[in-house]
Amino acid sequence: MITPFDDAYFMKKALQEAEIAFEKGEVPVGAVIVVEDRIIARAHNLTEQLNDVTAHAEMQAITAAANFLGGKYLHNCTLYVTLEPCQMCAGALYWSQISKIVYGAKDTERGFSTMGTKIHPKTKVVQGVMEKEAAQLLKRFFIEKRNLN
Amino acid sequence: MITPFDDAYFMKKALQEAEIAFEKGEVPVGAVIVVEDRIIARAHNLTEQLNDVTAHAEMQAITAAANFLGGKYLHNCTLYVTLEPCQMCAGALYWSQISKIVYGAKDTERGFSTMGTKIHPKTKVVQGVMEKEAAQLLKRFFIEKRNLN
Repeated sequence: MITPFDDAYFMKKALQEAEIAFEKGEVPVGAVIVVEDRIIARAHNLTEQLNDVTAHAEMQAITAAANFLGGKYLHNCTLYVTLEPCQMCAGALYWSQISKIVYGAKDTERGFSTMGTKIHPKTKVVQGVMEKEAAQLLKRFFIEKRNLN
Repeated sequence: MITPFDDAYFMKKALQEAEIAFEKGEVPVGAVIVVEDRIIARAHNLTEQLNDVTAHAEMQAITAAANFLGGKYLHNCTLYVTLEPCQMCAGALYWSQISKIVYGAKDTERGFSTMGTKIHPKTKVVQGVMEKEAAQLLKRFFIEKRNLN
C-alpha cells in the first residue's frame, strides 16, 4: 500500500511551522504532533516574541496535544520536530511518555544526545528526516541575522 | 547585619506554594523566584489540574518571572524550589541563565543530578534548604494517595 502519510510528509508540516518562526525573526524550529495520521498540534518557536525560554516549539506542541487529547500522556503520538530537542524539551517528552520522536537536523551543541538527557524507555527516536532542509533554514537564519547586526 | 531575607525565608514561601498544590491533589512542589529580596514569581505544580506535563512549579515560575522582568534571561534571580528540579526544569533553567537555584529535598530518581542534566555555568546551586519539611510534605502526599486507592 502506498500512503502519503510517511515521516517526510509530517516533517514537511513541521518545516512549514519553522518557516513561520523564521518570518517572525525567531530561530526557525517547528513541530507537529500526530496521532493516527492526524495532526493534533502545530507549533513554532516563540521564545523572542514571548520573552520566554520555555516557548520552544516542542513545549507548545506538547501542551496543545495534551489539551486536545484531554490527558497528559502522549501515548500513540509522534512528535515531528525540525531540530533535535534540547534538554528541556527532551525532559518534557520524557514525562509525556510519547511513543515516537522524529527529528530533522542534529543539534551537536545543545541537543539532548550531546547533553546526555534521558529519553523515556517507551519512546522510539528517529533522526535525520529532511535533515538538509531543516539545517539549511537554520543556517539561512543565522547568516541573515549576522548580516543585520 | 541581621536580615530576615535568608534562603530559609524564601524557601518557606516556596513551601507555602507546595502546600497549595497538596490541597489541590497535586504532587506538592512549590517555587518562588526572587530578585533583590523581592519575590517576582510564585507557582506550584499543576500537572494534574492542567493535564500538562510541562506545568511544573519551576516552569510556571520561569515564565512568570520573565514576564515580570520583560526579558527572557533571569540574571540576578534566585529560584527557590522545594524539590530538586527534573531534566525539563533544569533544562529550562539552563536557557534562562538564572544566577542561583536553591532546592529543598533531593529527588534521587528523577532529579537533574541523577539524570545528568547540565546546569548553566553561570548558575550556582544550593541544596538541602528546609529539606526535611519539603520531603515530609511529599511523603505525606504519597501516603494519603496510597490510602485513598
